[in-house]
Amino acid sequence: MEQGKDRSLVSKVMDGLVSGIVEEKYGAILPPQDVLSKEFDVSRTVMREALSMLLARHMLDVRPKVGTRIRSMRDWRMIDEDVVNWRFRAKPDPLFMRDVIEFRMLIEPRAAAQAAARASVADVAAIREAFDLFKGLAPGDTGYASANELLHTRIVHASGNQFFQQMAAIIRGALQATQPMLAEKAGAWEISVQTHERLVSAIERRDPKDAEAAALALIELAADEISREFAVEVPSRH
Amino acid sequence: MEQGKDRSLVSKVMDGLVSGIVEEKYGAILPPQDVLSKEFDVSRTVMREALSMLLARHMLDVRPKVGTRIRSMRDWRMIDEDVVNWRFRAKPDPLFMRDVIEFRMLIEPRAAAQAAARASVADVAAIREAFDLFKGLAPGDTGYASANELLHTRIVHASGNQFFQQMAAIIRGALQATQPMLAEKAGAWEISVQTHERLVSAIERRDPKDAEAAALALIELAADEISREFAVEVPSRH
Repeated sequence: MEQGKDRSLVSKVMDGLVSGIVEEKYGAILPPQDVLSKEFDVSRTVMREALSMLLARHMLDVRPKVGTRIRSMRDWRMIDEDVVNWRFRAKPDPLFMRDVIEFRMLIEPRAAAQAAARASVADVAAIREAFDLFKGLAPGDTGYASANELLHTRIVHASGNQFFQQMAAIIRGALQATQPMLAEKAGAWEISVQTHERLVSAIERRDPKDAEAAALALIELAADEISREFAVEVPSRH
Repeated sequence: MEQGKDRSLVSKVMDGLVSGIVEEKYGAILPPQDVLSKEFDVSRTVMREALSMLLARHMLDVRPKVGTRIRSMRDWRMIDEDVVNWRFRAKPDPLFMRDVIEFRMLIEPRAAAQAAARASVADVAAIREAFDLFKGLAPGDTGYASANELLHTRIVHASGNQFFQQMAAIIRGALQATQPMLAEKAGAWEISVQTHERLVSAIERRDPKDAEAAALALIELAADEISREFAVEVPSRH
């Protein structure tokens, strides 16, 4: 299971390609594969593999008739979404749930405050649109979970901070892990919709403090259920 | 550059292995490679590749004479450290530096507060040890940057939250990007050492509030320099 010769050659080629990209050697479009193979003096197979590793990390984009475009560095995926998804697939233990809630409490209220301060007009419209979709569905309806994830993802995106944006994959995993518990509690859905409404309208009103408070209130709804279900102490924010 | 047949087969095998792992089908040690190849009905090459992908993500551990051990899920790397390092290798632009500082302000003060509340005796000793190493070096000395990174990494680790711990790779990148600026300013090193000392002793005294304030003060030292150098508005904490 040691890394074979090919594997370390692929790593070296990836590293060389990235150096060229960050030094802006190639411009917007990478040279064709056979030109790159010659430049790096490797087989086309090795070059293809190195390029597909960068493609999987959202660093490149293949466009028919245009070629291989270098994506904005903001898009480069620092989060390994496979591992995040695998991690959330396991049966949750109390300590993991505590960590999930703490992480949501860390990221989401601040991201919501920044969304209220910085969101573009288009961002705000996209958030309202996702909320309208969400409130039209009930827990258990097809698309309910993904509408909820879309709404939270758009808010984090509107924060404008590329590190916060990268954390969206973890937030989606956290929502999947915590929502089913909430869905079972009578009256929880109505409160959840109201609190989401408060969050969205605070962003529309450009009110960072209320956006932060509403985002925190949403997580506390989940935290209460988790404390009960897992008998673990979930921290309050302060 | 499409994913070849082998590549999607490797993905499918990875996914199957992970399912078995999270369902605790294998226990602590994976079966030998040829047993797994038969179970999944794939070539040894494909199985070797799938295992090496999981190994690179810190999900497995190869121990001579013992076999392939499944690592604790806490160790599974949700962060792609290659991409983080590549991202920080590029020439920094003002917006990127703003995002870096905002992200440090988000994570580090809260992690420091939790370290003060939760660190084990061994964690506290490791933090003090890293600080002693750090304060014995001056900017420009060999090992200065890595001693600083080690200290910050140990504090984040002592928070006990596995998501915060995963962010250590980003914090190390951020320190590399922001420290050189601080090093050039007269008197900055002394203030930096004093503020680190305050942070470490707050953790030792189990004082979350002071640990949080000291961690924030440290980042503000860097933020001041960055505001000047990049002419970008770096947000204050509140």
